[in-house]
Order: sequence, then C-alpha cells, then structure tokens
Amino acid sequence: MLITSCTVHDLRFPTSLQLDGSDAMNPDPDYSAAYLRLHTPDPALVGHGFVFTIGRGNDVQAAAVNHVAQRLVGRAVDDVCGNPAALNRELLWDSQLRWLGPDKGVMHMAVGAVMNAVWDLRARSEGLPLWAVLDAFTPSEVVDLVDWTYLTDFMNPAQGREILEEQVAGRPQRRATLSVDGLAAYTTSPGWLGYDDDKLVRLSREAVDQGFRLIKLKVGVDVADDRRRLGIARSTVGADIELAVDANQRWTVNEAIENVKRLAEFDLRWVEEPTHPDDVVGHSRIRREIAPTPVATGEHLANPVMAKQLFQMQAIDILQIDATRVAGVHDLLAMMLLAAGADVSVIPHAGGVGLCEAVQHFGFFNAIAIAADPAPLAIEYVDHLHEHMADPVVVDNGVYQLPGVSGASTAFNDEAITRFAYPSGTEWSS
Amino acid sequence: MLITSCTVHDLRFPTSLQLDGSDAMNPDPDYSAAYLRLHTPDPALVGHGFVFTIGRGNDVQAAAVNHVAQRLVGRAVDDVCGNPAALNRELLWDSQLRWLGPDKGVMHMAVGAVMNAVWDLRARSEGLPLWAVLDAFTPSEVVDLVDWTYLTDFMNPAQGREILEEQVAGRPQRRATLSVDGLAAYTTSPGWLGYDDDKLVRLSREAVDQGFRLIKLKVGVDVADDRRRLGIARSTVGADIELAVDANQRWTVNEAIENVKRLAEFDLRWVEEPTHPDDVVGHSRIRREIAPTPVATGEHLANPVMAKQLFQMQAIDILQIDATRVAGVHDLLAMMLLAAGADVSVIPHAGGVGLCEAVQHFGFFNAIAIAADPAPLAIEYVDHLHEHMADPVVVDNGVYQLPGVSGASTAFNDEAITRFAYPSGTEWSS
Repeated sequence: MLITSCTVHDLRFPTSLQLDGSDAMNPDPDYSAAYLRLHTPDPALVGHGFVFTIGRGNDVQAAAVNHVAQRLVGRAVDDVCGNPAALNRELLWDSQLRWLGPDKGVMHMAVGAVMNAVWDLRARSEGLPLWAVLDAFTPSEVVDLVDWTYLTDFMNPAQGREILEEQVAGRPQRRATLSVDGLAAYTTSPGWLGYDDDKLVRLSREAVDQGFRLIKLKVGVDVADDRRRLGIARSTVGADIELAVDANQRWTVNEAIENVKRLAEFDLRWVEEPTHPDDVVGHSRIRREIAPTPVATGEHLANPVMAKQLFQMQAIDILQIDATRVAGVHDLLAMMLLAAGADVSVIPHAGGVGLCEAVQHFGFFNAIAIAADPAPLAIEYVDHLHEHMADPVVVDNGVYQLPGVSGASTAFNDEAITRFAYPSGTEWSS
Repeated sequence: MLITSCTVHDLRFPTSLQLDGSDAMNPDPDYSAAYLRLHTPDPALVGHGFVFTIGRGNDVQAAAVNHVAQRLVGRAVDDVCGNPAALNRELLWDSQLRWLGPDKGVMHMAVGAVMNAVWDLRARSEGLPLWAVLDAFTPSEVVDLVDWTYLTDFMNPAQGREILEEQVAGRPQRRATLSVDGLAAYTTSPGWLGYDDDKLVRLSREAVDQGFRLIKLKVGVDVADDRRRLGIARSTVGADIELAVDANQRWTVNEAIENVKRLAEFDLRWVEEPTHPDDVVGHSRIRREIAPTPVATGEHLANPVMAKQLFQMQAIDILQIDATRVAGVHDLLAMMLLAAGADVSVIPHAGGVGLCEAVQHFGFFNAIAIAADPAPLAIEYVDHLHEHMADPVVVDNGVYQLPGVSGASTAFNDEAITRFAYPSGTEWSS
C-alpha cells in the first residue's frame, strides 16, 4: 500500500475577535493550523499532522509542510511507518532543507507535521492511540528513535536507556493508575490579558468548580497591573489553588528578575517564558536570582540542542514541550529523556487549536515510561476549538483522560476545512 | 513616490554538478537565492535583497520573502527608507509572524531579505554604497538602528554608543586606508571536500599566487583524511600562509575536541563550525579544551540573542556574520557591536552566490566604525558565480576593494533570472 497523495490546508480560526488567547506578546492571535493529510488507497487510513500558528504566515508554513510531505508520496506505507527513525533522519539531515534552519523555524516545524502525520498513520494502522504505540516499545527501541548526534555531551544512548529501564517494572501500574485517574490538567482560560476583571473572577471560579487545581495568568505588560490581577485571582480561588504566571517572553533578563520578585508573594507555581526563548544564559541567571520561584519554558524551544543547554546550565525547573514546535515525535522523545536526566518536570504546553489533543500522548507516555516521579506532572488545557478536532480531548473534573481512540488525535473535522480554510472557507469568504 | 510592487524569484544555480561548495554537511548544494526586487515608479530605483539557500526549499523561502515584502507595497519610499528601524521593529515584532520563529529560520531570513532590500533602495536613492550610508551616521544614530530589547544584560545602548564613539576620531583615517589597501580576503576555493588532491594542490598554489594569505579547508568526514589534506596544503603553501579549517557542524562536542587536537599541529588560524550552531554551551567547552586554537562560528547563527550568549560564555574567538542568515542590517549591526564589546573579531562568512557582494559592506563598516582593531579583519571569498551579480565584488591581489557603486550590491543581473529561475529558466527547462 502506497501513500498516494497529500493535502495541506491553511486553516484559520478568527479567535482575535474574542481576544481569546491574548497575551503580552500576542495581542490578537487567529489560531491557525497548517494541516496535513497523508492519503492511502484505504479512505479510512489517513495520517494527520499539523503545525499550530497564530495567523499570518500560516500560508508559508503550509507551503513548507507541503514541500516536505510531497517526498512521501509514492512510498510504501510499511516502509515509511515501519522505520520512522530513518525517515526522521532523512528529513532532518537533508542538507538543502537543513540550510533553512538548521533545526528551527518554519522548515523544522514542517518536518514535525510530517513526522507526526506518519506516527498518526502508524498508530491508526495498529489500531492504537499514539501513547500506546510508544508504550509497546522496549527501552532500546525508544532510544533508537532518538537522533543522539548533538546530545551526547549531556546524555548518550546508554544513559537514555537506563532512564527508561528504571521505569519498565512500574509501567503497568502507572498505566493502570493513569487510565483511572488521568493526568492533571491546568487551565489558562481565565487568565488572558484581554479579559476584564469580572471575567477573570468569573472564569477563575468556574475553573475551580470544574476541578482545576492550578490556574495560569498572563502577565508582562505592566507589573503593577499584574500584581492587581494576581491579587484578584488569589482572593477568588483561595490558598489551596496554585497560581502560575506566563510572561510570553515580554521581559528582558533584568526586567524578569525585578518583576518576578514583585510577584513572588503570590506563591507562584512557576514563571513561564520570562524572556526570549533562545536565551539559555538569561534563563539560567533569572532562575538563580528569583529562586525559589520555579522557571518554566519550552513552547518556543526550537530543538533538543536548545533543551540540552537549558539542562546543562540548570536554567529551568519545568520543560513545556509543544507538539508542533519541534520536529515531532522523535524530537519530543529526546527532550523528555533529557528532562528526565536533568530531573526537570515535563508539563506540556497546549491550548491554541489541536495542541491539547496532540500533546496529551506525550504527556501520558512521559508519565508512564520516562519521568522518575509522575506525581507533579500536568498538561495545559484551554477549553476552546476542540469541536473542530475529530478526536477531542476528554478533560473531566480538571483531569485529562487517557486517550483511547487510535491515532495521534491530530485530525481535524472535514467541517473545519469547509468553514475555516483560508481564505476560501465559508467563515472567511462571507 | 510609492513602492508599487515587488517581485520574488526562485533562482537556483546547478553548482552540485561540479561539487563546488561541497563540504562535510552539504555534499551537493545548488547555490540558490530567494531574490526580491522592490519596485518604484522610477525604473532606475529598485531595492534588491535576497536569502541565500542551497537548493530545495528555496521555493518556500521565496514564498516567505514575498509574504513579508507584500506589506511594503503601496507605502511611500520616503517613509519606509526614512525610518528603517521602525519598519524592522514592525516586521520582527509582528506577533503572528514572530510565532513562526521567533527570530529564526525561514521567516526571520525573509525579514532579512526585505530589510536588506529597503537599505539597498535607500543607498541607491542617496547615490552611496551601503557602507557609506552607515558611515554617515553618528554613533547615536547607529545605536538607534539596533533593537536592544534582549541584549541589555550584556550591552545596553549607552555601552554600544561608547564603542562607536571611541572610533569616531579615527574613522577618516581608517576610511582612507581601507579605500587604498582594501580589506583582506581569505579563500575557501581550494578546500572543498569534493576536490581531489591534485585540484587541492593546484588551487592552493593559485590562491597564493593570487595574493591570498589565508586558505580554509573543509574537514569533518574523516580526521585521518583531514590530516592528510592539511599536510598537503601546508607543504604546498609553506609556513607563511595561514590555514583554517571548517567542519560545517559535523562533529559532536566530544568529537570536536578530540579531532581538533589531532589537527592542531597544522597551526590553525581557526576551527570553524565545530558543532551544532545552536550549541553555545558546547562551543564554550570546545574553546576551553582546544585552546589556543581559536573557535569561529556565525554563518548559521539565528539572531543577536544567540550571539550575545556566545560572548557571555566566552565561546568563540571569531564571529562570522552572514548577510542573509539574520534579519538584515539591524541584526548585523547589533552582532558587530556585541562582538566589539566582547573583543571578538568579525570575519564575515561569504561564498555561495551574492554573499561576498552583500556582506562586504558590513565588513568594511565594522573596520571603519566599530572594531577596536581592524588589523586582523578579513572577509571570506570564493571566486564563483559573481558574473550573475549586477555589482560584483572586486577582489585584487587577495584584497577586497572598498565598494564604490551605490546600493547594497544585492542585485542580480536580469540574465540570471532568465537563465536560472527555477524551474522555468532556460538552464532548468532545457
């Protein structure tokens, strides 16, 4: 059976109209996806992958996804899905494409969409959710999925295997526990900067009522206002609910240090993206100076080489992997293993559109097979746009339920294409 | 006068046929350019900019350049060229485009092509070469061109101004000297990995005869072979000619340390791109362990935040800026100022197609107005494809001559478009 064709759609959802998702860096995002389908002769067997973006430029991202995906057309499904590590290496080490990064930005994310679509196709063909496909691998098999080339000065394959082997005996118990208890969700829904105080109070109350134990607020425009809003949130939710803040890269290193000190009294679970995501040295200094407030970053981290350095420099406490920022499954496995080696928690970034669906598989696999202690793990959750996904996440009582549907949960509904394809969809053309 | 339209061409030169440009990472590049022209009602007043790539994906890069450039269509030339710092900020801080990096990869380089085209347009309208446009600015005016946001923990605007003010008195003398003596070129032409030993010997002799004092060899596939080729080169050129090596990112951190130690006896002027360009921590360790062999990198450095960290970590001795890797003039000014603050030499990367032409303006401006000591400065030179440029570099007796033609030297000849546009040009369609 061959991959017969691929289709790529530029989907854009007009979220800027509601200020959903507004933060200090991104005032008016239109949540978007450069969405890939890999087709086979079997109409039920399609591989889905996407890159999440926030609007303009999604056409360029879609062009990049299409460019990479075209290389798979005409290849055998068994070859492609049977040895994804070889395909991953082929795509990432294609010297001409690599020049456009390397390992970062539009072309790297395009490889991610393709690799995630390949894994979706594989998981569907096995009739398993992606996390369970990964969970069926031995430690050696997982290690062989990772491209270790530039990581060995921090962790070599044998050390990666050791980390996985330590959890082998406990996997069944962890799997059983997670299938009952799920994995904690935390919510950013109440905390967008564009919301007024009444909406912050109302949504914070609702979040607690819905079972969330951690709420994240956007900060970064004005620290006095940030203090005020944190005060409102704290008095609304009480002392038992954790609060985190997300500056979305708006601060310089020095500003981050000053401002977080002014916010520390609110007993923050973490401060997220305090400065530019490339600034390993800056995060390291920030973490040292704002201790014990934990530092989190990752949704804009380009590749495992950047993650490695954050760990070498002891620059973060929490790694927030994103399902579509890096080159897909293989990069994500690398980053989760490195995090385990550094004793750093993985709390995936989600929200946007489709990100909760896509990243939950990695959050669960990490909790089952990699993390030394799954207790502090959680996954970000934002309750919008899930209606456009074919297999929407199930979050009950503040908890992600272990996905049971086969695939990587990366498929959009056909109706999303009809309505939100840009600019031809009915929502945009009207 | 308005910018009336823009055209973007996907130009590809079939250099892989000759193995020109072959190295350990890039065995078969087809030197390419995503080439932008900003048009005005005056047919003589066109702004030219491009992103250099090595083949596949140049279509995606061209789409990105076009996406960004379309924003300028309909704007007044005076507004755009009169306040390029505002435009630079508008493009880099467009939150939706920024999401696709941030500040890295295809979208960042696209902004670079656009900003470089704007500066070309400005220089042409002033009837000056770009270096001279910059040289007419006061220290404060140069400082105001830089986006300092994420740099201030290493250098603030006042410190940048101090660096420039120290050279103000000496600028006329430096300018006069450079206009007579030019700036040293070094050559990579003899050292491509795809060349056999006879060609290495012949081209090395020719390079010395042509006046080059430094020759760079590609290494990184096999260290024993690298030793052999360095031995041949050294015995061909003698002890007075400097040799450098370029590993094009092929080594891990540990391999770099081991291999450079085995090459050190050849008295290397520098080792270039020893490992992944994002690996600040790795470069820092490599430099410490291979001292006194100097470490150079930069052609794949995504942005000034990465450069800042290389300096904070004392990770390199030489910064090799590239004219089209970053977001153009403003990023390059930032990186040269940071380098001066770190007492690191700037020796620009060039070669490819158009890179020598584009980057010489920055090499000269750095030598005139920024560097504490211009004596060790040089610019890479490779003698091919210059015939496709409208204002080709003049390199005489191993020395770059100060450009005298107005503009940024970023224009390709019309004939290059006719012949090498991909896939419609005559060279590709035949």
